[in-house]
Amino acid sequence: MSILAVGTVAFDSIETPFGTAPRVLGGSASYLTLAARYFCPDVRLVGVVGRDFPDDYVQRFRDSGIDLRGLETDESGDTFHWKGRYHYDLNERDTLDTQLNVLVDFEPTLPEDYRSSQIVCLGNLDPAVQRHVLDQVDDPEYVLCDTMNYWIEHTPDSLRETLQRVDCLVINDSEARELANEPNLVQAADIIRDMGPETLIIKKGEHGALLFNGDTVFSAPAYPLEAIEDPTGAGDTFAGGLAGHLAQVGRYGADDLRRGIIYGSAMASFVVERFGPERLYHLNRELIVERARAFRELAAIPKLAPLQAA
Amino acid sequence: MSILAVGTVAFDSIETPFGTAPRVLGGSASYLTLAARYFCPDVRLVGVVGRDFPDDYVQRFRDSGIDLRGLETDESGDTFHWKGRYHYDLNERDTLDTQLNVLVDFEPTLPEDYRSSQIVCLGNLDPAVQRHVLDQVDDPEYVLCDTMNYWIEHTPDSLRETLQRVDCLVINDSEARELANEPNLVQAADIIRDMGPETLIIKKGEHGALLFNGDTVFSAPAYPLEAIEDPTGAGDTFAGGLAGHLAQVGRYGADDLRRGIIYGSAMASFVVERFGPERLYHLNRELIVERARAFRELAAIPKLAPLQAA
Repeated sequence: MSILAVGTVAFDSIETPFGTAPRVLGGSASYLTLAARYFCPDVRLVGVVGRDFPDDYVQRFRDSGIDLRGLETDESGDTFHWKGRYHYDLNERDTLDTQLNVLVDFEPTLPEDYRSSQIVCLGNLDPAVQRHVLDQVDDPEYVLCDTMNYWIEHTPDSLRETLQRVDCLVINDSEARELANEPNLVQAADIIRDMGPETLIIKKGEHGALLFNGDTVFSAPAYPLEAIEDPTGAGDTFAGGLAGHLAQVGRYGADDLRRGIIYGSAMASFVVERFGPERLYHLNRELIVERARAFRELAAIPKLAPLQAA
Repeated sequence: MSILAVGTVAFDSIETPFGTAPRVLGGSASYLTLAARYFCPDVRLVGVVGRDFPDDYVQRFRDSGIDLRGLETDESGDTFHWKGRYHYDLNERDTLDTQLNVLVDFEPTLPEDYRSSQIVCLGNLDPAVQRHVLDQVDDPEYVLCDTMNYWIEHTPDSLRETLQRVDCLVINDSEARELANEPNLVQAADIIRDMGPETLIIKKGEHGALLFNGDTVFSAPAYPLEAIEDPTGAGDTFAGGLAGHLAQVGRYGADDLRRGIIYGSAMASFVVERFGPERLYHLNRELIVERARAFRELAAIPKLAPLQAA
């Protein structure tokens, strides 16, 4: 199986209560691919960087075995740069600066080989660009998609068009409420799934994730970490682990999605332990399986005896 | 087994986006006892009401089989009255008015029979009053306690004194952060458990609950409801279901606590479906067991296969 991931490749300059990290490797496609590659040997990155993107960042992708033929370098400008500051409890952040740079004119042309990709991950981007990528894939088996408030507010019609072609939408709870214009998440899920995606995954950060699929709901916990250094990229890492697991098993059933969410959550629980994607360079499958199993223990509800007469 | 629950008995005047409910029966002791009685035949209420407390509210307790010998009527004043308004998404509320009334001089003297109570639930009250009740119980097997930001901020030393005598503290996430003065919940749990309670349960509303006990953590989901009419009393109802289950099994081990949290969560998921405690009058054990089982399905993580080599 192969995974094609399109999204941003960026510099992130991050401030948290625990320190600062200027110009670390960031972007949705970076986190997605660096996580997915632990599960799937054939991970293809589609993105753009500028003239200022350092060789050693490229080398890190290569060392991780990621196919970079879809990573374009636009010499006319600089790399997308996001600056943000997290609050005291890490649940909120302020964007201090966003320099889109070469991302403004990003309209990727996929390498010929990429047309046969089986799983497509549409990282958070202009929905028109997401469709432009989908148009170049012959017959994807499974399409995952992320988006954000900006596109929900500014390009709602274009976003709806993309959603009709998506199997699984992965967004956070505030985005779900805004997309559906409905505060209740269960009702919001119905409304969003009517827009196209058979499956909806709602990320709730430190509160885990909800899966709406078929007639059932799955509530996944978040791993209770002693120390979180930097939440940046957790959502994309989650999607990378999820897509990686689906690619590994080649199935998209309810149990596969539940397991995928747990592997995605495990990967996300690692990445927040260090600034940037640092933690994703040095994992191994034993560590990942161990963390995923800890989630099962964390969420295990013992068998319930029948309620005796009071 | 017997449960003694001390707390407020109140009028609540509630506004939510779905309607208003003036002067409905409220208070921590009300929700606690009305939930616990489905699990335990011997539930004893300790509280105070004023001269304006209607007979039919008293009758509702009686019809529910709750022992009211510990409910004092203070003819010198009116019943505690809380007025609040919930926001659009029900996750936040504003207190519009608080009339403490007869609660100001509440210093309960327990009926003699109550001294032998086995499980004691200290609802949110002045920590000195909580201790005053504990002083009158001969040898409680298990003490559960709730508190709130007001006591954390205004009577920290008194609260610490109470906590030393508590087996299980049940508070919400913002209270846990404030009590420990630590934003990370895992670290906050360590700090709080050092204050006395062997077990800490952190309620997270629509995000479920966390149990810190021994060396393990349990993450319980919340039930995804299509419609929530009024979140008032959910936390006390949760504590009532938890205490009820513990009384029913007469054990306080890790699995008992996990199951108790699920029964508590199930009770809370019912109570928010209607204004006030209305839903607690008409439940039965089949409905409760069915809801609790739905939690197991909701949180079930399928067995994880070993991660294959990528």
